[in-house]
Amino acid sequence: RKGVIIGLGQVGLACAYSLLIQDCFDELVLQDIAPEKLEGEIMDLSHGMPFISPTDLKMGTVAEEGKDADIVIITAGVAQREGESRLSLVERNINIYKKILADVVKYCPDSIILVVSNPVDIMTHATLKITGFPSSRVIGSGTVLDTARFRSLLAKEMGIDARSVHAYIIGEHGDSEVALWSMANVGGVKIVPHGWENLASDEQDFLSKIYHNVKNAAYEIIRRKGSTSYAIGLATTDIVKAIVNSQERILTVSGLMKGMYGIDDICLSIPRVINEKGILQTINLTLSPEEEKLLQNSATILKDIFKQLKI
Amino acid sequence: RKGVIIGLGQVGLACAYSLLIQDCFDELVLQDIAPEKLEGEIMDLSHGMPFISPTDLKMGTVAEEGKDADIVIITAGVAQREGESRLSLVERNINIYKKILADVVKYCPDSIILVVSNPVDIMTHATLKITGFPSSRVIGSGTVLDTARFRSLLAKEMGIDARSVHAYIIGEHGDSEVALWSMANVGGVKIVPHGWENLASDEQDFLSKIYHNVKNAAYEIIRRKGSTSYAIGLATTDIVKAIVNSQERILTVSGLMKGMYGIDDICLSIPRVINEKGILQTINLTLSPEEEKLLQNSATILKDIFKQLKI
Amino acid sequence: RKGVIIGLGQVGLACAYSLLIQDCFDELVLQDIAPEKLEGEIMDLSHGMPFISPTDLKMGTVAEEGKDADIVIITAGVAQREGESRLSLVERNINIYKKILADVVKYCPDSIILVVSNPVDIMTHATLKITGFPSSRVIGSGTVLDTARFRSLLAKEMGIDARSVHAYIIGEHGDSEVALWSMANVGGVKIVPHGWENLASDEQDFLSKIYHNVKNAAYEIIRRKGSTSYAIGLATTDIVKAIVNSQERILTVSGLMKGMYGIDDICLSIPRVINEKGILQTINLTLSPEEEKLLQNSATILKDIFKQLKI
Amino acid sequence: RKGVIIGLGQVGLACAYSLLIQDCFDELVLQDIAPEKLEGEIMDLSHGMPFISPTDLKMGTVAEEGKDADIVIITAGVAQREGESRLSLVERNINIYKKILADVVKYCPDSIILVVSNPVDIMTHATLKITGFPSSRVIGSGTVLDTARFRSLLAKEMGIDARSVHAYIIGEHGDSEVALWSMANVGGVKIVPHGWENLASDEQDFLSKIYHNVKNAAYEIIRRKGSTSYAIGLATTDIVKAIVNSQERILTVSGLMKGMYGIDDICLSIPRVINEKGILQTINLTLSPEEEKLLQNSATILKDIFKQLKI
Ligand SMILES: NC(=O)c1ccc[n+]([C@@H]2O[C@H](COP(=O)([O-])OP(=O)(O)OC[C@H]3O[C@@H](n4cnc5c(N)ncnc54)[C@H](O)[C@@H]3O)[C@@H](O)[C@H]2O)c1
Ligand SMILES: NC(=O)c1ccc[n+]([C@@H]2O[C@H](COP(=O)([O-])OP(=O)(O)OC[C@H]3O[C@@H](n4cnc5c(N)ncnc54)[C@H](O)[C@@H]3O)[C@@H](O)[C@H]2O)c1
Ligand SMILES: NC(=O)c1ccc[n+]([C@@H]2O[C@H](COP(=O)([O-])OP(=O)(O)OC[C@H]3O[C@@H](n4cnc5c(N)ncnc54)[C@H](O)[C@@H]3O)[C@@H](O)[C@H]2O)c1
Ligand SMILES: NC(=O)c1ccc[n+]([C@@H]2O[C@H](COP(=O)([O-])OP(=O)(O)OC[C@H]3O[C@@H](n4cnc5c(N)ncnc54)[C@H](O)[C@@H]3O)[C@@H](O)[C@H]2O)c1
Repeated sequence: RKGVIIGLGQVGLACAYSLLIQDCFDELVLQDIAPEKLEGEIMDLSHGMPFISPTDLKMGTVAEEGKDADIVIITAGVAQREGESRLSLVERNINIYKKILADVVKYCPDSIILVVSNPVDIMTHATLKITGFPSSRVIGSGTVLDTARFRSLLAKEMGIDARSVHAYIIGEHGDSEVALWSMANVGGVKIVPHGWENLASDEQDFLSKIYHNVKNAAYEIIRRKGSTSYAIGLATTDIVKAIVNSQERILTVSGLMKGMYGIDDICLSIPRVINEKGILQTINLTLSPEEEKLLQNSATILKDIFKQLKI
Repeated sequence: RKGVIIGLGQVGLACAYSLLIQDCFDELVLQDIAPEKLEGEIMDLSHGMPFISPTDLKMGTVAEEGKDADIVIITAGVAQREGESRLSLVERNINIYKKILADVVKYCPDSIILVVSNPVDIMTHATLKITGFPSSRVIGSGTVLDTARFRSLLAKEMGIDARSVHAYIIGEHGDSEVALWSMANVGGVKIVPHGWENLASDEQDFLSKIYHNVKNAAYEIIRRKGSTSYAIGLATTDIVKAIVNSQERILTVSGLMKGMYGIDDICLSIPRVINEKGILQTINLTLSPEEEKLLQNSATILKDIFKQLKI
Repeated sequence: RKGVIIGLGQVGLACAYSLLIQDCFDELVLQDIAPEKLEGEIMDLSHGMPFISPTDLKMGTVAEEGKDADIVIITAGVAQREGESRLSLVERNINIYKKILADVVKYCPDSIILVVSNPVDIMTHATLKITGFPSSRVIGSGTVLDTARFRSLLAKEMGIDARSVHAYIIGEHGDSEVALWSMANVGGVKIVPHGWENLASDEQDFLSKIYHNVKNAAYEIIRRKGSTSYAIGLATTDIVKAIVNSQERILTVSGLMKGMYGIDDICLSIPRVINEKGILQTINLTLSPEEEKLLQNSATILKDIFKQLKI
Repeated sequence: RKGVIIGLGQVGLACAYSLLIQDCFDELVLQDIAPEKLEGEIMDLSHGMPFISPTDLKMGTVAEEGKDADIVIITAGVAQREGESRLSLVERNINIYKKILADVVKYCPDSIILVVSNPVDIMTHATLKITGFPSSRVIGSGTVLDTARFRSLLAKEMGIDARSVHAYIIGEHGDSEVALWSMANVGGVKIVPHGWENLASDEQDFLSKIYHNVKNAAYEIIRRKGSTSYAIGLATTDIVKAIVNSQERILTVSGLMKGMYGIDDICLSIPRVINEKGILQTINLTLSPEEEKLLQNSATILKDIFKQLKI
């Protein structure tokens, strides 16, 4: 089990620390364009190795130390700035990706690529086009974290462990993401049992607020600490574990749509089954008509951006 | 199992992330003087909770949310700057500690205090004087990390897992720290079997270089990335685990000397047995005469600094 | 965190081995009426301790070493024989429990009692009556294992990880247990989307077979190896983890019914929220009319047995 | 990571349960000559899978499901009876091994074989001869468990965690095994600092009793519970972890001697470095003259037995 992380900023480092502590790889290669800082980070991480299950940690590139890696995690890019929309980052990041991916295609042709850089749905789609990889092996972290935030907020409001709350955020990882209220449940008890329109208006307000908190979580954190890192580090670790342990777990990762809900040729998040081959299968949920419309809207927004890009 | 971390800079955050992932506490309270940034960090950390064993994570102070904590970890302070000696940080940090410790004494009178701020031996001693706590309950992270670095470098040179290398760094966590070559061994085989003076000079050079790399590791990392954080986060987690799991493990933490090797009334690191009561016992090693002299020298250096302080 | 296991037969030992490996307690006391065999088991278990996180393991009784335990797990009793119905075991086991529980009441008055002996619903109810404990602190392992078997079989048929299958077995742990098809889903997709009666008859047969396999699993295993032990050991560990980590997870444990679905004064399994205080809350599921009738039938069967007992 | 266990009696099952809980393999195949009981055990184990990290668990043989396994663990054989010496079991077990190993050679030609059946040193040597495998890939569990028992008893007497006690049992896993007092230490402090002959006679008695308790532990447990299983299950798991995680740990496994201490062409335990290739290296300890004599004696005893066998 060999992994590479490309881009060791706040996010890449949180991923690396979490992946090492949780012992996900036998070998982990870290690649960045700032070699001196990276060398310092690797010294720091490696001095902690005697306290945990050891991983063979190396500074390097996919072209050499990272050759034939099983998973390539890309967090390179430019962090979202306060107030900046996720989509505005895109042109800068596409160019960085083109350089990085040329080597991934050459030296890790059988790898699964896990895209974390924002806007993650666009970057995932771009990665697919640039590499020509089969769509099962290009995965975006998508709304895995948003789904976790959603469950976590619902759980908190209800005084329940988040693992007993079943609810999804799908669509774009961004402003148009969709909360699937129609199937959200706590241990089998639906949160919205008789349709959104039959909720009292204070109930609607209460639940809407939770959705908005989920959607705006990144903005709120960036406003306070300048970037987000720890939660996405743990979300990425969770996706990696589903892959390396071949658990066939269902996660709302971003991937290529092929007609479901009338959406195709764009990447966005819906629940997908993940195993050691990447995306094994996409789950066909019965959405409410309203939810389906919102999801299609999310797809349209992403398509509008994507077609403006030269890839 | 309730913990508090005071000071959520680079080091405090690396401790928090590692302690959460490794599920060391049921409840963890984070305290800092920069409330907005802290709020952002806690939001970020807590959104990752659905991916790991949950800990009840709170923003607060020892005086309120942290009341009656079992362990108070203090990493508040000013980071070592490039080129700055660890000892020059001291006056600034003592003043910060005075304020913090007044509340710890009042609201967590039975806690174990784990001092991480530098210069850690001086800060540990100061904490002991300021709080009046029994010496078993004031522990400095000391040379736990240096010992790990030492084992890790030796292991690397010999192609062995670090857990099979047994060797200690004792004394000051700093320039006068002492490598105990006389008992260093790999699975029972001594590294210096017949005394340092009977080594060939190239062997001496080789081993001396390892010692210097250990001693200067922090400087080298700070030069590259500005501070150190991940390894000390894992070392701190390891000490916390020895306490909360009451494992009676031996760790080279800093604590009060009471006459062993002719050293007393100063804090420095020698192997100590740690359990849920704190320091249970100090291990009386048979040092070589040279090692004993170096340890006494380390004590003298620390005493010279300590007596210049008003506490 | 202190636990006691009473009854170290096949089941108790599987619980002990799993609880030790998964490091659930700081202190674990094992009590049985066969002291010599127990002494051998404890020697064997304790020699394995250097390979795992250490637990303080002791031979003893609730009256002495086990005093003030947090959790008392009772697996004492007589194993189910080939062909024997779970309910026929009851009289023998009630008498054993009376002796055991007198000491639990006296020496562990604040403990949570986790009943595993069969017939587990009856034994849980008997424990409640004999001890006079509040119903939150008397928990039967109930259909936690049946629910896991159900998920595991569904997952296997669908090629999905069991953790993404959400489905419950409720009611009696035994022949009248009820599969909740109406809410069973895989990542949000209902397995029976339009009611049982709208399934094709081969679909009904296919799903019925899964239910029968779940219900008869214990019989099948007992026929082959004489008893069941490993799975119930892991299920018990899972319940213990929910308690000691205060996770507020939802588990189908057995507990006292107080009117929900028109059922009261009997113990059976429905989803309940568990934390360090025991049963925190009972989940009010919307059952289909058919499911509700089956659950009431399960309750009636248990009541008929219970009223024949002198407690 | 694929493993096979051959022989699912008390020992094989304890190994399987521990290996599953500790998530050591992706795929685990269980082979035995009693298919019905084995089927029951596998049903029982697999129903517990939803509570732990899943392993693909199968009933089968090395010739089919187990093909190309990385590690083959052999615990088939006849358990030691009360009062029976380990060496008297040998003829019966050799014959069982011949059949088993023919298939291992054919279908898992690159596997590491981990021999657990007793007398383990003889069975390891026989396995080496029968298979013609390189000596690095034939490992006996040897005195790994005896060493753990030794550390555990020393730790208990001294009120220290076993992980801080460094001491070895080497030689035959049996009556002639050797305690290496000359290097035994607690955190660097020697237990016998100035030679055995300079101990007071009550100190000698005290330490001798610990050695005898280690040597006779299996007999004592077998007398009480009929066989030993849990500790050897955990010891075996520990060896497997050293292999699959390629940790380069030092363990006192049994393996072929090639001249060290004047001993060759026999298998016995001395500290060896283990990684994913098997035995990487043998540690050359400086023994006291008395310890060296005892080890040579152990070798002679094993040779005398081995030469009586037809292999
Ligand atoms: N998917 C999510 O949920 C999520 C959450 C948080 C952040 N992000 C995204 O992750 C990305 C990284 O965020 P960050 O906070 O770590 O940013 P950062 O600026 O701290 O780090 C970016 C790193 O990428 C490196 N880099 C730039 N070009 C490179 C190249 N060609 N090759 C290798 N490395 C290169 C930089 O040197 C830097 O170390 C951003 O795009 C951000 O928006 C995504
Ligand atoms: N023991 C070791 O081996 C070791 C290793 C690395 C760093 N350190 C030491 O750890 C300390 C922290 O280093 P860092 O890199 O995290 O520094 P940092 O500057 O990033 O963080 C210090 C934090 O302390 C906070 N703080 C200051 N005064 C406070 C007060 N009165 N109450 C609460 N919080 C307060 C600051 O707001 C800041 O968040 C330094 O003293 C450093 O030298 C020790
Ligand atoms: N709830 C479930 O899902 C489930 C699953 C499997 C087994 N079980 C039940 O668990 C119980 C134990 O099964 P087993 O296979 O371990 O049986 P077993 O016969 O192997 O063990 C029973 C143990 O209880 C001990 N014991 C008897 N009276 C005692 C007393 N007064 N005090 C202390 N110990 C006493 C016996 O000495 C023996 O060691 C049975 O009732 C069985 O039906 C429940
Ligand atoms: N190395 C150690 O420290 C240590 C410790 C305990 C036991 N042991 C040894 O482990 C072995 C097993 O002990 P146990 O208590 O599990 O015995 P057991 O009798 O319970 O189990 C032996 C199993 O081997 C199976 N078996 C027999 N022939 C077989 C064949 N040809 N193919 C496949 N399976 C076959 C049997 O069906 C049975 O299930 C014994 O040799 C025992 O002495 C070693």
